[in-house]
Amino acid sequence: MPVSPDDLSELRQQIDGIDSQLVKLLAQRAEITAKVGQYKSQVGLPIYVPEREAELIAKRRAEAELQNVSPVLVEDLLRRIMRESYHTQNVDYLCTNPQIKKVVVIGGAGALGSIFVDMFKRSGYLVELLEQNDWPNADSILNDAGLVLVAVPIKLTESIISRLTNLPVECVLVDITSTKQKPLAAMMAAHKGPVLGLHPMFGPDVSSMVKQVVVVCHGRHAQQYQWLLQQIRIWGAILQQTTAKEHDDAMVFIQVMRHFCSFVFGSHLSDENPDLQKLIALSSPIYRLELAMVGRLFAQDPVLYADIIFDNKDSVALLTEFSVKFNQALALVESNDKDEFIKQFFKIGSWFGDYSKQCLVNSRQLLLKADDDRSISEGC
Amino acid sequence: MPVSPDDLSELRQQIDGIDSQLVKLLAQRAEITAKVGQYKSQVGLPIYVPEREAELIAKRRAEAELQNVSPVLVEDLLRRIMRESYHTQNVDYLCTNPQIKKVVVIGGAGALGSIFVDMFKRSGYLVELLEQNDWPNADSILNDAGLVLVAVPIKLTESIISRLTNLPVECVLVDITSTKQKPLAAMMAAHKGPVLGLHPMFGPDVSSMVKQVVVVCHGRHAQQYQWLLQQIRIWGAILQQTTAKEHDDAMVFIQVMRHFCSFVFGSHLSDENPDLQKLIALSSPIYRLELAMVGRLFAQDPVLYADIIFDNKDSVALLTEFSVKFNQALALVESNDKDEFIKQFFKIGSWFGDYSKQCLVNSRQLLLKADDDRSISEGC
Repeated sequence: MPVSPDDLSELRQQIDGIDSQLVKLLAQRAEITAKVGQYKSQVGLPIYVPEREAELIAKRRAEAELQNVSPVLVEDLLRRIMRESYHTQNVDYLCTNPQIKKVVVIGGAGALGSIFVDMFKRSGYLVELLEQNDWPNADSILNDAGLVLVAVPIKLTESIISRLTNLPVECVLVDITSTKQKPLAAMMAAHKGPVLGLHPMFGPDVSSMVKQVVVVCHGRHAQQYQWLLQQIRIWGAILQQTTAKEHDDAMVFIQVMRHFCSFVFGSHLSDENPDLQKLIALSSPIYRLELAMVGRLFAQDPVLYADIIFDNKDSVALLTEFSVKFNQALALVESNDKDEFIKQFFKIGSWFGDYSKQCLVNSRQLLLKADDDRSISEGC
Repeated sequence: MPVSPDDLSELRQQIDGIDSQLVKLLAQRAEITAKVGQYKSQVGLPIYVPEREAELIAKRRAEAELQNVSPVLVEDLLRRIMRESYHTQNVDYLCTNPQIKKVVVIGGAGALGSIFVDMFKRSGYLVELLEQNDWPNADSILNDAGLVLVAVPIKLTESIISRLTNLPVECVLVDITSTKQKPLAAMMAAHKGPVLGLHPMFGPDVSSMVKQVVVVCHGRHAQQYQWLLQQIRIWGAILQQTTAKEHDDAMVFIQVMRHFCSFVFGSHLSDENPDLQKLIALSSPIYRLELAMVGRLFAQDPVLYADIIFDNKDSVALLTEFSVKFNQALALVESNDKDEFIKQFFKIGSWFGDYSKQCLVNSRQLLLKADDDRSISEGC
């Protein structure tokens, strides 16, 4: 039992020694995982292998329990270490279609387009860009393309697709717009060959595609673009197949509601003009997180969000319905009808089902992680 | 360079070996930090010492850079390890006021009250509870109390405080309600001695008070409850001082808006009835996080949230103003006025100022942490 400040200082030195060993272990581990990455890229194995990850974690959790160490702690640490190793394995990838002559990315200089350009290059493809000023030379650029990827702003997508009527018949035509029905219809009309709609569910700020979701909406001649889907899997992404209509219906809930409410929340705050620093200081982790999620919107491109909200034909109907719900709930507060509020609360809870309880348990862990991070916990 | 499946298997064994060493290091570290915890509790040092934490992280970051390891990775791991060590240092705490005879917690059997009961006991205080059925014996329970903490539901707070007119004059009277003006006024009216309003900004599910915010609103005779504030600091909490009015004004933004909007969002979803699993599968991390934040509300106590929303006198005005803002923004979508939307977007962005950019950078890190966690990334 330590009894003096000297003892405390000695214990702290021991902790420092252990932490230094930890850094050394991480350096050793990174060397080995780099070799694993090289090997995988040679033989075309995906970087992210869920089964291997699960097995590795299960074994270390079992060891932790034997040594009285929290298995949750060990799992959190390993997941964080593995994330780093996925994102720093800047390896080249196996090329799943070495026969195709050329990949053309229209808008490949843009934020999201350039990620795909980089991934195709690292997979050994010859990649050419077609930007706004290149249209006079479009025919020669597109002439022997095996894949054309359209990565332009939503509002330009259809008009640009409509120009792609002279592609080689075997060429795969793909778009990565965040709506799917209209671009897919436009591609089917413009091109007679294989057509595919993708929606990468991540922003241009990701450092790798590992574990990111890419939504897949089939167009035509799916057999002829299987190599592309396999290529994206090798990059580490998780493919989710759906129809264009289901996709667009879901996105009204997912994207339109989310961004619109954040916009209104920000608009409301800026007009009411409370002391932001004071709000942050008085907040619990969950409110700081909420505020950060609203705040981050306004550091991004307004045109993108205007397009997402305004260009979905179902936006007005859904937002109007939300406004009705808001005013109904507000009427309960005005008339002080707590009983009805509580009754509806239970009804909504039963719609969410087990998901609610799982969210409560799991978000607790995430909020603790937000707490670890001084930047979020001290208000960004 | 590995060239065969056997090589891959050999490399994986090396990774497993390193990860096993990591588990061992964690076990050793926990033994040492337990000793540090014992020592701190003996001499009354706070468990969480920001300067020591910052120094420890800075040194290991520097070592990481020398060894080509990401300093961000090392900092994330150390913060996670330290969080574990704070939360598992189930030590006893130094008692900052050994002279007082008794702490009475009214509602101490409740979720949040019982956390305070536990902390007081672990700090060597004699703690007695006063629950609903104990009022016939209230006089004898309260007779020689040095501190009375009111930890009852919001709607009961004022009526229960109004009964506390016979406390010893030196007794410190404190409440932990999530509104502050009314309870503080009620305490000042009922009791002539020292009075203090607290609002712990955390739920009953925290595993320790380390780094949690406790809002402090002074009442009367602050000198006589400095020991209590010091005690709470020793437990690891961060104290934020403000006036009761400032507190309540901030909480309309922080708590009422947040919970009300989550309620409406849930109500809207359950009525529109989309396929929840499909929404989750098609979502990016930020939408899954948003959905989880809404979902978690409905696993909790509706009465608590009804009280928070309905019992704040400014709720109706603020929510009405929000509804007006919502409909103004909706009108922009209906009339397809993207230009005005973008103009307002920039205006709101300038109100948020640098905070927006900081949030974007920092929430990116947090979203990556959510990705690490399979439970959130696979939809709770």
